[in-house]
Amino acid sequence: MGLLQDTIDRIAPRDANLRAQARQRLEALIMPHWALGRLMDLAEDLAGITRSLRPPVIRKAIYTLAADHGVVAEGVSKYPQEVTPQMVTNFVAGGAGINALARQAGATVVVVDMGVAADISALAAAGKILSRRIGPGTKNMAREPAMRREEAIAALEAGIDLARQAAGTVDVFGTGEMGIGNTTPSSAIVATFSGSPVAEVTDHGTGIDNDQFAHKVQVIERSLAVNRPDPSDGLDVLAKVGGFEIGGLAGLILGAAALQRPVVIDGFISTAAALIAQALCPTATDYMIAAHRSVEKGHRVALEKLGKQPLIDLDLRLGEGTGAALAMNFLEAAVRILTEVATFAEASVSRPDA
Amino acid sequence: MGLLQDTIDRIAPRDANLRAQARQRLEALIMPHWALGRLMDLAEDLAGITRSLRPPVIRKAIYTLAADHGVVAEGVSKYPQEVTPQMVTNFVAGGAGINALARQAGATVVVVDMGVAADISALAAAGKILSRRIGPGTKNMAREPAMRREEAIAALEAGIDLARQAAGTVDVFGTGEMGIGNTTPSSAIVATFSGSPVAEVTDHGTGIDNDQFAHKVQVIERSLAVNRPDPSDGLDVLAKVGGFEIGGLAGLILGAAALQRPVVIDGFISTAAALIAQALCPTATDYMIAAHRSVEKGHRVALEKLGKQPLIDLDLRLGEGTGAALAMNFLEAAVRILTEVATFAEASVSRPDA
Repeated sequence: MGLLQDTIDRIAPRDANLRAQARQRLEALIMPHWALGRLMDLAEDLAGITRSLRPPVIRKAIYTLAADHGVVAEGVSKYPQEVTPQMVTNFVAGGAGINALARQAGATVVVVDMGVAADISALAAAGKILSRRIGPGTKNMAREPAMRREEAIAALEAGIDLARQAAGTVDVFGTGEMGIGNTTPSSAIVATFSGSPVAEVTDHGTGIDNDQFAHKVQVIERSLAVNRPDPSDGLDVLAKVGGFEIGGLAGLILGAAALQRPVVIDGFISTAAALIAQALCPTATDYMIAAHRSVEKGHRVALEKLGKQPLIDLDLRLGEGTGAALAMNFLEAAVRILTEVATFAEASVSRPDA
Repeated sequence: MGLLQDTIDRIAPRDANLRAQARQRLEALIMPHWALGRLMDLAEDLAGITRSLRPPVIRKAIYTLAADHGVVAEGVSKYPQEVTPQMVTNFVAGGAGINALARQAGATVVVVDMGVAADISALAAAGKILSRRIGPGTKNMAREPAMRREEAIAALEAGIDLARQAAGTVDVFGTGEMGIGNTTPSSAIVATFSGSPVAEVTDHGTGIDNDQFAHKVQVIERSLAVNRPDPSDGLDVLAKVGGFEIGGLAGLILGAAALQRPVVIDGFISTAAALIAQALCPTATDYMIAAHRSVEKGHRVALEKLGKQPLIDLDLRLGEGTGAALAMNFLEAAVRILTEVATFAEASVSRPDA
C-alpha cells in the first residue's frame, strides 16, 4: 500500500484560517451580506482548499476514464459493450458531449484507458489517450468479485499517479467516465455505503425499460449477496462491486486532495467513486465539489452520503465529465467574486443605514 | 405609441420549424436520448429564437439600468438613496459583482442612467454610461402614481432603442438593474399580475429586519390601494407602481424579441420587468430565458406567472445582472451541444440494442 497509503497520509483538512480570511473579505464586498449566496460559499471553500486568497482555477482538466464491466453479461445495459471503445474514439475525435462542454469551460479532456474490453492500444501509442489498463474489463460481479484486491489498489494508484503527473499543469481536476454498464456497479456501491435498498438507488441508466430495470435491480442484489462488500472498507467495496474507471477516479480524487487542489465530481458514477475515496479517507471530501444532481435517482442518496450539495440541477444524465465541465464556470466565477469585487471601504460606498 | 406599438407588432413567435430541426439533430447525438436534459431544451429554444441551427451567442451584453424610487421616502430600504449613484460609479470602475461575473462570461456591461436621483451626467459625458433619463427618480407610489403614462412609454421606448442600437453588435442580451428600493415596486408589480397577497411576494430585499418588512408590506399595500393598477394594462401597472429602470428593462426585452435575439432575465426586479413586457406582448416571452431563482421569495411566483423555469438556483439575491451573466455560460454550452457534438450516424457509434 505504498503510494495509496502515502497519499492518504498526506491529505490534510482545508485550511480554516484561509477560509476565515476569505469569509472576512467576502462579507465586506459592496453588496448586501452574502448576496451571491452559494458562489460565495464556494469561494470560501476554494480559499481553504488552495491555501490562497487568489485560488488558481484557470488550468482545468477533465479526466475521462474508460473501462468495461463483466456484469454486462447479465444484460443490464441497453447498449452493446463495443460502444465503450467507440466513445473513446469519439472523445479523441472531439465530437462527444464532453468535448463540446470542456471547450466551453476552457478545460482540456484527458482520456484514460483503465480497462476497456477491446484493444485500443493504437490510440495510446499515438499519444491520443493514456493507458493505465488494469485488465480487459472487470469480472462479472453477479458471480464473483469484480476484481482482485491488488487490482483495486492498482486502479487507485493509477488515478493517484494521474493527479501527481499533472501537479505542474492542472489547477482544477474534474472527473468523468465512460463504460457501458457502469451505473450497475455504481448503484451497488451507493447501496453498500448508504444502506439503502437497491431499488432506491438504481435507475434506468442509458434508457432501459421497466422489465430491464427490475432485472437490473435483481442483478445488483445478487452481486451484493454473492460478494458481501464491507462498507467500512473502501478497498473491499471497490474490489467486489466496483470498476476500473471507478477505482481510477477514486484515486484521482485522493491525488487531487493530496495536492490541495479542488476536484469537481461529475454525476452518479463519479459520485460512487467519490464515496470510495471518502471511505478510504474522509478528509478527502474537503476537496470535492459536487457539480450537479443527475436524473439518476440514486445520485441524490449518494450526494447526501458524501455530504455535498450540487451546483447545477439541469436533468443531466450523460456522464463523461459533462456536468463537471459546466460547473467549472462557477469555480472561476466564485474566484472572480473573491478577487475582483471591491469592498465598501475600497469603493467608498455608503453602508446600510449610514 | 409609435415605436412601442411598432415593436410589439414586429414580435413573432419562435420558429417552430427550426425548433423541430434542432430537436431532430439533438435526438440523433451520440448519447442516450436527451441525456443533457435542460441544456438540450435550451438549445432547441435558441434555434427557434434565432431561426438558426447555429444560434449566435458569442457577443453578449448585460444592460444594467439604474434609477431611483420615490417610495424610499417611506423607509422601505436599509440603504440610503446615495448608494444608487455610488454603485453606478462602481460599475464604471469595474469593481462590482456584475463586472466580475460579466468578465467570467465574456459579456460587456452597458450601464444606463434611466433616472438616478443625482447628477451623474459627467459619467455620460465621458462616455462611461448611457443617459436615457426619464426623470430624477419616480414619485412616491404610496401617495400617487410613480410616473405619468407618457413617462412609462418613454422608459419602454428608451429600452427598445437600446436594443435597436445594439442590433449589429449583440447576439445575447442580459438584463440587470440598480436602484435602491426597487424590490418594493417589483413586489407591487408581481402582486398585481399574480393576484397574490403582497406579503407572499415581498421579502427582506437588501436585508431589512422583521419590523421593517411588515412596514414594507404595508407601504406596498397602500401603493396598490391608492393607485389600483390594472393587470390587463401593462402600461398602467408600470406607470402606477413601476420604476424607470423597470420600464427600460421591459422595453429592452421587447426590443430583443423584435430582433429575434435571446434575452436572459436576471432576478426578481428583472422578472417584474419581464412581466410588464409579457403583459404588453405575451409572445415576447418566447425570447426570454430565466437565469436563476432568487432568494427573494416573490421571485418564485413571478417566474410561475412568466411561465419560465430558471437555469440556476444558487441563493443569489444581488441583481445588477449577475445571475444573467452566470447563465450566459449555459447558452454557449447549449449551442456547442447543438453544433459540435456528432450524431450516431456521423460517428459510427452502435445504437442501443444493435
